[in-house]
Amino acid sequence: MIIVMKPGATREQIEAVSERLVELGFKTHPIYGQEKTVIGAIGDKKALSSEAIINLPGVEKIVPIMKPYKLVSRELKETPTMVRVGGVPVGGRGLVVMAGPCAVESEEQLLSAARAVKAAGAQILRGGAFKPRTSPYAFQGLEEEGLKMLARVREEVGLPFVTEAVDTRDVALVAEYADAIQIGARNMQNFRLLKEAGATGKPILLKRGLAATIEEWLMAAEYILDSGNPNVILCERGIRTFETATRFTLDLAAVAVVKENSHLPVIVDPSHGTGSWRLVLPMARAAVAAGADGLIIEVHPDPARALCDGPQSLHPETFDRLMGELAPVALAVGRGLAPTGVFLEKAAVLAGGK
Amino acid sequence: MIIVMKPGATREQIEAVSERLVELGFKTHPIYGQEKTVIGAIGDKKALSSEAIINLPGVEKIVPIMKPYKLVSRELKETPTMVRVGGVPVGGRGLVVMAGPCAVESEEQLLSAARAVKAAGAQILRGGAFKPRTSPYAFQGLEEEGLKMLARVREEVGLPFVTEAVDTRDVALVAEYADAIQIGARNMQNFRLLKEAGATGKPILLKRGLAATIEEWLMAAEYILDSGNPNVILCERGIRTFETATRFTLDLAAVAVVKENSHLPVIVDPSHGTGSWRLVLPMARAAVAAGADGLIIEVHPDPARALCDGPQSLHPETFDRLMGELAPVALAVGRGLAPTGVFLEKAAVLAGGK
Amino acid sequence: MIIVMKPGATREQIEAVSERLVELGFKTHPIYGQEKTVIGAIGDKKALSSEAIINLPGVEKIVPIMKPYKLVSRELKETPTMVRVGGVPVGGRGLVVMAGPCAVESEEQLLSAARAVKAAGAQILRGGAFKPRTSPYAFQGLEEEGLKMLARVREEVGLPFVTEAVDTRDVALVAEYADAIQIGARNMQNFRLLKEAGATGKPILLKRGLAATIEEWLMAAEYILDSGNPNVILCERGIRTFETATRFTLDLAAVAVVKENSHLPVIVDPSHGTGSWRLVLPMARAAVAAGADGLIIEVHPDPARALCDGPQSLHPETFDRLMGELAPVALAVGRGLAPTGVFLEKAAVLAGGK
Amino acid sequence: MIIVMKPGATREQIEAVSERLVELGFKTHPIYGQEKTVIGAIGDKKALSSEAIINLPGVEKIVPIMKPYKLVSRELKETPTMVRVGGVPVGGRGLVVMAGPCAVESEEQLLSAARAVKAAGAQILRGGAFKPRTSPYAFQGLEEEGLKMLARVREEVGLPFVTEAVDTRDVALVAEYADAIQIGARNMQNFRLLKEAGATGKPILLKRGLAATIEEWLMAAEYILDSGNPNVILCERGIRTFETATRFTLDLAAVAVVKENSHLPVIVDPSHGTGSWRLVLPMARAAVAAGADGLIIEVHPDPARALCDGPQSLHPETFDRLMGELAPVALAVGRGLAPTGVFLEKAAVLAGGK
Repeated sequence: MIIVMKPGATREQIEAVSERLVELGFKTHPIYGQEKTVIGAIGDKKALSSEAIINLPGVEKIVPIMKPYKLVSRELKETPTMVRVGGVPVGGRGLVVMAGPCAVESEEQLLSAARAVKAAGAQILRGGAFKPRTSPYAFQGLEEEGLKMLARVREEVGLPFVTEAVDTRDVALVAEYADAIQIGARNMQNFRLLKEAGATGKPILLKRGLAATIEEWLMAAEYILDSGNPNVILCERGIRTFETATRFTLDLAAVAVVKENSHLPVIVDPSHGTGSWRLVLPMARAAVAAGADGLIIEVHPDPARALCDGPQSLHPETFDRLMGELAPVALAVGRGLAPTGVFLEKAAVLAGGK
Repeated sequence: MIIVMKPGATREQIEAVSERLVELGFKTHPIYGQEKTVIGAIGDKKALSSEAIINLPGVEKIVPIMKPYKLVSRELKETPTMVRVGGVPVGGRGLVVMAGPCAVESEEQLLSAARAVKAAGAQILRGGAFKPRTSPYAFQGLEEEGLKMLARVREEVGLPFVTEAVDTRDVALVAEYADAIQIGARNMQNFRLLKEAGATGKPILLKRGLAATIEEWLMAAEYILDSGNPNVILCERGIRTFETATRFTLDLAAVAVVKENSHLPVIVDPSHGTGSWRLVLPMARAAVAAGADGLIIEVHPDPARALCDGPQSLHPETFDRLMGELAPVALAVGRGLAPTGVFLEKAAVLAGGK
Repeated sequence: MIIVMKPGATREQIEAVSERLVELGFKTHPIYGQEKTVIGAIGDKKALSSEAIINLPGVEKIVPIMKPYKLVSRELKETPTMVRVGGVPVGGRGLVVMAGPCAVESEEQLLSAARAVKAAGAQILRGGAFKPRTSPYAFQGLEEEGLKMLARVREEVGLPFVTEAVDTRDVALVAEYADAIQIGARNMQNFRLLKEAGATGKPILLKRGLAATIEEWLMAAEYILDSGNPNVILCERGIRTFETATRFTLDLAAVAVVKENSHLPVIVDPSHGTGSWRLVLPMARAAVAAGADGLIIEVHPDPARALCDGPQSLHPETFDRLMGELAPVALAVGRGLAPTGVFLEKAAVLAGGK
Repeated sequence: MIIVMKPGATREQIEAVSERLVELGFKTHPIYGQEKTVIGAIGDKKALSSEAIINLPGVEKIVPIMKPYKLVSRELKETPTMVRVGGVPVGGRGLVVMAGPCAVESEEQLLSAARAVKAAGAQILRGGAFKPRTSPYAFQGLEEEGLKMLARVREEVGLPFVTEAVDTRDVALVAEYADAIQIGARNMQNFRLLKEAGATGKPILLKRGLAATIEEWLMAAEYILDSGNPNVILCERGIRTFETATRFTLDLAAVAVVKENSHLPVIVDPSHGTGSWRLVLPMARAAVAAGADGLIIEVHPDPARALCDGPQSLHPETFDRLMGELAPVALAVGRGLAPTGVFLEKAAVLAGGK
């Protein structure tokens, strides 16, 4: 790290900082400028070191040189990580689409959604059994009953599923049923939940917090890897900005930034990221073009009667159209297609038709 | 609520929406404009109703008329709520200052901080035993050992204390020791934690999430009141914006907005809200002038060696100066002073001295 | 519009509001709910009317029903507008790429850039003669000399050009040379400049302000259309958010929102929108997939020696690669290609090669 | 500045960067860490230097050490600058309140407002003759006729006035009449306007842009000082954030940050900063407590019929109450009072009454 001293810092102050750095195990390299002095500090940056220095007299600021994350970084591991969710590889050449209802409402609703999304080419089912809702008066999910429905529908339809855990006390239960555990945006910095979910060894779908920087998001993933579980899939789902025309602002550049700095796969959630089903289609195409490894999309057999997130849920027919539109975009960015006949067929038809 | 139909909505679509509304228990009042039709819907808005309507053909948007929160609202309860933390009333005429270290590091450190803040006029001790940290490599708190130290120091110094709970599994433990339970900004929408903490009946210090709207913050408080616990103290602690000169942007207008819309007491955390001890003083004064019921401030006996948040922690001497500066501002806005001799004395000296 | 009365509003207050509305030319439709009364007001909403009502006693808030823009809206004009920049149609089936250096630095630099971007398939040249710079000590542009160079290079290379005007006093001069006038993000609400530029009748490239809502952006375009000039091209170039990993957050959903609400063409600037040349490639692809009508990209013959925006400028070779990557994405979303042999050829090779 | 090289940077790359730095006039100090090399560069940082380096092979990032502003900085000039607006000193011990209508609508309206604000203790009149409005259909101001009214009312009432210029072509005209020229938030980075206004030598009231960092705001002031005019008053007026309960988020910490980094006076606009007259009172008090040198507040004789910003305009009686509330807060932070009998009297009454 670099310690920048204030313009009027005295020689004694500069020396005191150097001594403290040496005491903390750093080698120091002072550089005396005309107006300011900076001190380069080389060593194994422990978490505390910058906090131990910043308040010393004469210090203006500390500039970190190293990234704060290690295990998730591309510097540590150059090759992309592939995470398998119930046999489906996420982060490989194939584009993976996860789809299903916001919340599991009934077995009938789930089965209908699952069949529709599978037919359209989705490879993983999504559906919430535990729902974090802004209002205590909103539907909070079917809980374990929902997990059981997800498991039965997996048997019936043949799609692995991802579902959210919202409490450390439920993690074991969720892990018992699910192929992958989702950590929602509002829990991205619920560090205990990250550790608990990580400890199950299950693939973790880690959504970006709605006000989390990319660095904080990667640090949250670092918690999971640090708990011994390398199976993390990152998910960009929109950040909170001043714009109110969309529910959130989908930050697709984050996909490219993550790809540059981390080996973990990253997918995009255009449903939450926009809050409007009409915007899901263009944003899903854009996410794939930006380099996302997959998508997670809300589909409901009857969006007008959804108990949760109706406005952003696609009708199965619209989802089918979306999958058709995605195929040529995926091809255009060199993505192999998922091994679903329907999907391949669609791509062929569309490629030929243009 | 008001349903706004699209410009080209047909009479059939308008009627279908009206019928669905009636089916959901609303009385409807259509208003036919030249370009658009809107439908007023009167009734007991259930959580689902707007989601059940928004996707019907021809609907452009839904405009809610009622606020989504009930129990926390001033419309329900006009008189301000006073919450007692170990005998100290928060939300009354007196201004309450909570102070202490970011994290409990040792009994010696805590005792030293507690004595200093009490001498300067603070009435409640703060200190973290469970610490949510961005990095898995940072100090995570002394956990139960820290709670025990807080309890011993409470005995020794005579200050009740507030401390954070970060996991539903620890809530009972924290409640056993603490006079008030803090829900941190990153857990503001950890709804399970809200319910669990609420169920203890203990006063809850609910920090605003760093990207939470005031409405969402009040909805989080609604979860606690809905769990049967009316003892909620709101705490503004800065929101995330594009400005990087401060760690967060302290939103003092939120204090006034909360006062207008809710009966709950609201305090301000200028330490986290700015991230720099030099800014704590002016922002503490400003918070009191804006109408806050209290402050929560980080004070460390030796900020340069703090294990957490050193840059924003005040040295006890600076805290003492701060309390001296607060006294006349509190008087200026008609706030009675806390019944601490030192504080009263300071105010008298300062009021006379100017 | 809808006037929402406060919960305790008296009948006199409600009537006073109704009377004022009638006085302002509205028909009123009061709806009496159990807790609140709302008044629907139908009529020709003049700019002042909501401001004339909001302060009347008992009024809680005003909810606008109609969009504030007219001339730019799709409700007024359903068919997309095509704007011709020196013969190149923007907003039609073809994807249009504008490229060139941030600032015109010398005729040699400009000529070299223009030749390179044309060879790669760009159809319009960009280059700043008047530069708005954050620092008064930074290079401010060659001004009229730069315009002359742009005009000479246009002759030489055969590309029309777009360049920025930053002062009402320069608009006529810029219009004399340029094929299209750019209004920069920092001047999006410089309403005099909008009017002056609009009055030239030249195509206007209107960048979104870095903190402008989509609605404000369309209102800025409304100023130009209201001045009698329908030739506006909107340009999304990133908004300011808390994220610091990128210079701005490119809001690609804005492209789709604009398409839904306006008939004007919209292009994307991934160079300013990300601030890093490495991110320009994925974001350019994503913008096309999201439905943008074109792109504007910074290309410099020697980015390492650029006088402006070097970090986000592409080397000509990288730009060439970018154009190659865009071709199949454009095809994938049904975009006809620009009539450039090189570009077509590239697309063919790539389409075949995959 | 510090150049941070990428982890894998080769010795050749490091040397090439050093050579380029030397070529640009810097002395270099490389520091070889275990994972990364950084190069300290000492010298007279020209505007271009970082841009000339950032694109060299192997460079990861550039960390500036020096602040980009010079003339406005406290490092250059330690003593606070006092700016006189028609004889009223801004930035001294006295707190200065500027008040008046958003827009000049008629001489009667202006005169009524001016008399009321003077009676309540305001020392400077505000009122817009040129209005930048989001909508082309909104009232745009009386222009020169408004300036004349302001001048006549100044004679009549005896208050100097500040008014906005929105176009370089009007600056001379505005300067002819006004005691101080306001640069509005939307024009903060209209650099030509800054230069033109600066060149008049008149005091400039420079509002912070709604998405401007404090550093950018100070850089805008630097443009004015660089044009030879040291008379700049900064004005915090709220920034744009995700919060919608207030029109903007008033960033009072910015007052303290500016005070730390610059010698220029800084005032606060709680009217635009909140958008609601009910919030003006607490925020005005808070601004003074935070250390602002003054306030600028919208007051209209009949807010319900204001042509502009009615919802945030105070009724004269409310303004009078506000001034009464400000007096003791000003005293509490050691501010001498403005030499207005009424104001002093109020303060005495209030100080005694509490």
